[in-house]
Amino acid sequence: MPRDIPAYSLRSENRQVLLAKRPEGVPQASDFALATSAVPKPGAGEFLLRNIYLSVDPAQRGWASAEANYSAPVPLGGPMRALTIGVVVESQHADYKPGDFLYGWFGWQDYVVATEKQVIHRATQDIPLAGFLALIGIAGTTAYLALTELGRPKPGDTLLVSTAAGSVGSLVGQIGKSLGCRTIGLTGSDDKVERCRARFGYDVAINYKSADLDAEIAKVAPNGVNVFFDNTGGSILDTALRRLAVGARVVQCGTASIGSWNPPPTGPRNEREILTRRLVWSGFIIFDYMAQYATAADELARLFNAGKVTYELDVSDDIATAPGAIAALYAGENNGKKIIYIG
Amino acid sequence: MPRDIPAYSLRSENRQVLLAKRPEGVPQASDFALATSAVPKPGAGEFLLRNIYLSVDPAQRGWASAEANYSAPVPLGGPMRALTIGVVVESQHADYKPGDFLYGWFGWQDYVVATEKQVIHRATQDIPLAGFLALIGIAGTTAYLALTELGRPKPGDTLLVSTAAGSVGSLVGQIGKSLGCRTIGLTGSDDKVERCRARFGYDVAINYKSADLDAEIAKVAPNGVNVFFDNTGGSILDTALRRLAVGARVVQCGTASIGSWNPPPTGPRNEREILTRRLVWSGFIIFDYMAQYATAADELARLFNAGKVTYELDVSDDIATAPGAIAALYAGENNGKKIIYIG
Repeated sequence: MPRDIPAYSLRSENRQVLLAKRPEGVPQASDFALATSAVPKPGAGEFLLRNIYLSVDPAQRGWASAEANYSAPVPLGGPMRALTIGVVVESQHADYKPGDFLYGWFGWQDYVVATEKQVIHRATQDIPLAGFLALIGIAGTTAYLALTELGRPKPGDTLLVSTAAGSVGSLVGQIGKSLGCRTIGLTGSDDKVERCRARFGYDVAINYKSADLDAEIAKVAPNGVNVFFDNTGGSILDTALRRLAVGARVVQCGTASIGSWNPPPTGPRNEREILTRRLVWSGFIIFDYMAQYATAADELARLFNAGKVTYELDVSDDIATAPGAIAALYAGENNGKKIIYIG
Repeated sequence: MPRDIPAYSLRSENRQVLLAKRPEGVPQASDFALATSAVPKPGAGEFLLRNIYLSVDPAQRGWASAEANYSAPVPLGGPMRALTIGVVVESQHADYKPGDFLYGWFGWQDYVVATEKQVIHRATQDIPLAGFLALIGIAGTTAYLALTELGRPKPGDTLLVSTAAGSVGSLVGQIGKSLGCRTIGLTGSDDKVERCRARFGYDVAINYKSADLDAEIAKVAPNGVNVFFDNTGGSILDTALRRLAVGARVVQCGTASIGSWNPPPTGPRNEREILTRRLVWSGFIIFDYMAQYATAADELARLFNAGKVTYELDVSDDIATAPGAIAALYAGENNGKKIIYIG
């Protein structure tokens, strides 16, 4: 059962954040509109859920985009697709009862009439309610499953993580450390370097904006990097690839440094690095791994309650901040997992 | 025991092809020199081997290069590093007896005094002697092990192979077919397209020089490619990546289309393809897999004798053609595995 559950009221209206325009590149505040409507009623097999925390995720950029991607674009005029944690308040589905806390596809809105298909995870673990977005949400389960399934770290391995202070990266570093890795984090400010060391236990943290990144990685990983967990792509990736050990694994979990893929930007060719270093470079999307979600959630809760991993929250308490929240995330303005409390 | 063993004489001098200059890019005839010296004598623990067939391999370009690579550069003035098949004629090593046929690192020369370290494979399988270069050499074992270990083809998969008529690619197609794949070969001439279909059993073969490659792959693999076995890199790779199915495996086995990596050429960024298609892109070098060599050799011999795989030879019978042979290989002038008979 979740703990630290904040107050929430049963509002008489449903506030929604609608996708008003198809964004070019990173979604901006002007691409969204706030609207208010009546609280909907669940039909047979449905339930009414009251959202409590809304998640802000880098992947929302892709969901809002019309470009070919790994999920269908959010319809224009509809509520923005988002992960949230909320509570069932009315139900016509036997498996979902008022008072059940659920994590899933409930969108940027106070209320949603939902079906079972929108549920990702029943929030039963004994962790704070916000932890179901920050730790056991798709970011945390991505960190855990991408690192363990694709990165395959061994004790003594050197693990390099880009966006090391971010919602995924901060957990990757801690999970890697708990598995016996030496951890090196890359991040974009001296403040975040300090948080990587002090809060997320990185052995080394580097501000890639001010450092000579190639020289710095060479210095701190003289025998090469065994696992590179990459959330950025671009020039950070190009540099890191050339500092990998033979047989290293590269986990491609995001490409946050690239503003637009249409047309695709160019960069140095990397196929020779793959060949001569015998890399294994894999792409990870959590939705391929839903069968392992519950196991990952239990393990993350265990690591959290054992003091092995922690998370930071960047909480707004105003739904009106949602429209600009994705752009703020891409600008690196958050300190910890970005969520919006809408109690 | 090998069959189809050609005549060989015990010459009184040792002809050698020496690396005279450090090549820039693809080694040219002018980078080598022919020389003649006395036949050497084996010391304790050594044996004298008479080469019969010399192999010409794309990898020799890397071995001759001073660029950072996965093997130490061939010393200037020394015999060119090469794989060969030969016969022991004199021995001071208990495990190697006159009449033993050995495949290994015996260089472009008539005779070599060798140690056990230079032996890759004892040629015991019942296949033609030249087959120990063309089928059970590093090209064939690369084809078998890279495809099965990294490509992981499943029956019904669509397998795309670049340099499909080459020494590796022609075997990859046939092995893939024997494992139940639909095979698509890319090659550089209409003549080779015909050989891919008639000799190597490709379901589809495409001349990438004259076709609209992207449109052609889209047409023949409407559900995407599941395994891409790439020997070329460059623009063929960029096109193929964008026609892969979700979860496809990319085996990087060579980068033959790229003339020089210093400085690295640029191309479209591919990390977004890795992520959204959830690719697994791996580099393969046979020398990591020596423990599996004998098993692969047995399986290749079995497939050959069962009529499931065949090979073609491009045989010169003049050691004086060796200096220009690597350049000819990169120019695509060979029809089948390029070897030199020096009986």
